[in-house]
Amino acid sequence: MSTLVEQLIQTEAHQSIFESAVRQLPLPVCAAFGSSSSPQAVSFSNTDRILSTKDSEGVRAQFPQSVAASGNVVLTSAGPSSAAVQGKRVAVLFSGGPAAGGHNVVCGLKRVLGAGNTLFGVKAGPKGLLKGSLFEITDANVDFILNTGGFDFLGSDRTKIKSDKQFAQVRETCIKHNLDAIVVVGGDDSNTNAAVLAESLFTGVKADGSGVQVIGVPKTIDGDLQVGDLLSISFGFDTATRIYSEMVGNILQDTSSSLKYWHFVKLMGRSASHVALEVALQTKPAIALISEEIASKQESLASIIDRVAQVIVERSHQGMNYGVLLAPEGLIEFIPEMNAMIAELNDLLAHHLTKFSALTDDAKPAFIGHKLSPDNASLFASLPHYIVNMLLAERDSHGNLQVSLIPTEQLLIDMAKQRVKELDPQVPFAAHSHFLGYEGRCGAPTLFDAAYTYNLGLTAGSLILDGRTGYMATITGLTSGGTPQAIPLAGLLNIERRHGKDEFVIEKALVKMDSPAMQYFVARRSDWAAGDLFASPGPRQFWGPTTHQLPISVALNSGADSLMFSIG
Amino acid sequence: MSTLVEQLIQTEAHQSIFESAVRQLPLPVCAAFGSSSSPQAVSFSNTDRILSTKDSEGVRAQFPQSVAASGNVVLTSAGPSSAAVQGKRVAVLFSGGPAAGGHNVVCGLKRVLGAGNTLFGVKAGPKGLLKGSLFEITDANVDFILNTGGFDFLGSDRTKIKSDKQFAQVRETCIKHNLDAIVVVGGDDSNTNAAVLAESLFTGVKADGSGVQVIGVPKTIDGDLQVGDLLSISFGFDTATRIYSEMVGNILQDTSSSLKYWHFVKLMGRSASHVALEVALQTKPAIALISEEIASKQESLASIIDRVAQVIVERSHQGMNYGVLLAPEGLIEFIPEMNAMIAELNDLLAHHLTKFSALTDDAKPAFIGHKLSPDNASLFASLPHYIVNMLLAERDSHGNLQVSLIPTEQLLIDMAKQRVKELDPQVPFAAHSHFLGYEGRCGAPTLFDAAYTYNLGLTAGSLILDGRTGYMATITGLTSGGTPQAIPLAGLLNIERRHGKDEFVIEKALVKMDSPAMQYFVARRSDWAAGDLFASPGPRQFWGPTTHQLPISVALNSGADSLMFSIG
Repeated sequence: MSTLVEQLIQTEAHQSIFESAVRQLPLPVCAAFGSSSSPQAVSFSNTDRILSTKDSEGVRAQFPQSVAASGNVVLTSAGPSSAAVQGKRVAVLFSGGPAAGGHNVVCGLKRVLGAGNTLFGVKAGPKGLLKGSLFEITDANVDFILNTGGFDFLGSDRTKIKSDKQFAQVRETCIKHNLDAIVVVGGDDSNTNAAVLAESLFTGVKADGSGVQVIGVPKTIDGDLQVGDLLSISFGFDTATRIYSEMVGNILQDTSSSLKYWHFVKLMGRSASHVALEVALQTKPAIALISEEIASKQESLASIIDRVAQVIVERSHQGMNYGVLLAPEGLIEFIPEMNAMIAELNDLLAHHLTKFSALTDDAKPAFIGHKLSPDNASLFASLPHYIVNMLLAERDSHGNLQVSLIPTEQLLIDMAKQRVKELDPQVPFAAHSHFLGYEGRCGAPTLFDAAYTYNLGLTAGSLILDGRTGYMATITGLTSGGTPQAIPLAGLLNIERRHGKDEFVIEKALVKMDSPAMQYFVARRSDWAAGDLFASPGPRQFWGPTTHQLPISVALNSGADSLMFSIG
Repeated sequence: MSTLVEQLIQTEAHQSIFESAVRQLPLPVCAAFGSSSSPQAVSFSNTDRILSTKDSEGVRAQFPQSVAASGNVVLTSAGPSSAAVQGKRVAVLFSGGPAAGGHNVVCGLKRVLGAGNTLFGVKAGPKGLLKGSLFEITDANVDFILNTGGFDFLGSDRTKIKSDKQFAQVRETCIKHNLDAIVVVGGDDSNTNAAVLAESLFTGVKADGSGVQVIGVPKTIDGDLQVGDLLSISFGFDTATRIYSEMVGNILQDTSSSLKYWHFVKLMGRSASHVALEVALQTKPAIALISEEIASKQESLASIIDRVAQVIVERSHQGMNYGVLLAPEGLIEFIPEMNAMIAELNDLLAHHLTKFSALTDDAKPAFIGHKLSPDNASLFASLPHYIVNMLLAERDSHGNLQVSLIPTEQLLIDMAKQRVKELDPQVPFAAHSHFLGYEGRCGAPTLFDAAYTYNLGLTAGSLILDGRTGYMATITGLTSGGTPQAIPLAGLLNIERRHGKDEFVIEKALVKMDSPAMQYFVARRSDWAAGDLFASPGPRQFWGPTTHQLPISVALNSGADSLMFSIG
């Protein structure tokens, strides 16, 4: 074996040259935590901000202990923790899709809990909490996972803890492992779950009648978990959008090198278009569709396609038979007429099931097309053959179409091609489609996400040592050093009636039409469509002059005067 | 407008924070070129290496002037150029698919030609040479494109210059712009074209009877343009494989975070599997298929699928219901039985066209299936429905199936699913497919590709100033400072009979079974399949401790004792 082969074998199992190097990167901590080499827990005190939603009264009734304790008041750090709390047993779990920085939350927790307390990892998400699959996390573990991507140190899953049986299982796990606290790292659903768990475990879990604390940590690459200036972004969004932006930047560079292709790129973001907007701001493509704008303008599919085709034709007339279009994953669901047509289709198919099923595939579209109301029938007739088949074929167990299965990027290409031909048959239009999704969830966290999540871990740990429950950790003031704060989860909850039952939800933050980020995009996009003004943001860097950037949309929406973040 | 908005507008049109920073990165030059701040041209002298192929005699007959001049002898740099050549007019063009580093070839050329000579850019590839679309490249252009990705400064296309009319057009362009030399940046086809052009323009282009020099520069992300230790890799391969490796590393991290998916990833590489092998060496996935190995073992599709399914089942039995498979784009064409079946299908369809066309789609597979020879019929029957339809439907204008249209990654998923069910019905298997292609062609070049291409540009320019024609520029000794050398293009040519005509080709370099890179892969892959030994190579870095890496396969195959490259 050569020396090189031996070196290469040593890079196996998370020991690439890069992974070994990023483990050594120092992480800044908010001034409140003291020195970065040995961060100390902080205590918390009330601010004068009280959170409320339209459903606060209803929520109070169902979260009596949490609301009585917190008063829905936001907490802020109030100096070093005076009591040296010892002997706490804390479990941390990842919930839902992975996002970069999750490992650093664990690292921050472990460091702030220190040798006097014990941190357990819950294996494979909420399901592991039900089963009681816990293991003790060591300092060596933390050194190994620091600044690495993914959730693979613990694993994750999407189990929702809802039933009485599940709550009983959680209790059992708490008792079996003598837990004092649980940290749930997750998105809006998981933090709602954390609120419910906090109330459920508020008292009477342990022999002495005391409860188990529950703290949430805000994760989601979609960026739709935001609470104004209290939570300007969830972690993972920066890394994911930087990864997608590099790919889109590379593709843009390819379009003006090869001079003959359009690329239609679908990006993560079913409920909100933050990812598409951020990637557009980073790369400046010819077209970016924002679902919330389409919904707010009640734009029809035909109008969207026309808008896209006009840009294609105008660019071609300027000699540019190429370009890039960005579209969020959830686009179709934001087009009002599509929703209306799909709803009528669902009804018709349920109503005429026997007759419909007896038809040959060729006869089905006409059979249904004739029964649709005029508007829906005309939309139905405008769709490509494979979309019509999909609309008629695929129903979930509730009889609903799974809209997310529609290949939006291909639909847009095919309909735009048709419209371009109508507008100017001389315009060539060749397009490729892409979906950027999984590639962005588990990359090594950007220095922003790495520092942010480490400080979120320090904050979550401090909240536990300070005896708090039912809060979500946050860091405010991301451009001015950072302040550890805590958001009372019950203060975020709304009540939605689903399947005849009240369900609690944290409202998803959508792209707002009047936000600075959206307004900047709207002001620039016609110039981006008319020429080649794109930029390549490049791969995220961990050393050198380009490391300390905030997401552009976050910086704009927070009124920052530069892209630099500042923690510590 | 806020200050931040003004800053953001300044990042438009290739002025991202990253792009502005990489322009300032210093590039090392081979010692032969003197100081990196002011590199000087070198002269060349013969080495004692003479290149030959089985067709050398035939080639000599058709490239009499080139071979007489070069003797097919490799050149090496021989000290600083003594004559200060002035007044040369040189055109550079990009040919074929883009690859990272092309811009730096232009930069190296411009710097070494200096103020005394003129460099022109040919717009949009070989087609631009036919049309005479040239413009003068300035020092400011060079400062702007340095270290940026893509071919967009000039554009590219895939026109092959073959006909007498085209050769006459090139002559016309040379005369119109009074050119002394042309630099062709391209892959094996483009360098073959450069050889033909060099011979065609050897003499008698200009009024004084002199010719136009032609120099090739070796580009291709597929890595299949290699000439042993004379050209250990073409440029663009390192950047592309590093981009794909980050994506695959992120997906691997996702598999062991989400714990429920396989991802089948198709990678660039139709003729050779260098990309798939390099990405496998970088990331250590559970499975990587290498086309050349399949061809050399005459492995059947059923055997490949069985091999894949066995790994899926064994990993599942170890609790890992997830993993990553890598497959090269050209896989199908390397499976002997698939080629045999497709050839028989092509014949049958041509023979029974009228009868076949009259059938309904449902009746077609059985009609053809019965006519196939037994082996081919059984393979045909084993394929998924959509592949059968594709095999029966799509023929190009020559009556051939376009094998590259087959969605290999989906075929492998569907057939593996079937086989897994046979092996153990309890094993869950859910898979996603990906194709990583365009994302890797136009990223900012790694420091290796950036330095390599800049030095290739300096070498190509030096060859022109030294009066050479019909050579390909190369840098040898990439781990020991680098030496500018030149490969006589005619010495690489083979003759292939195509459509009744002799065609010249540079043989594509395939993955060799006995190469150190392949042997290392073979030695490790069962361990990678059995456990989670993957590594995340991370995004390519331009500053800091992880910047100076060679591709692993290149380092292994060159017998290097580390991954560090060393130029200058």
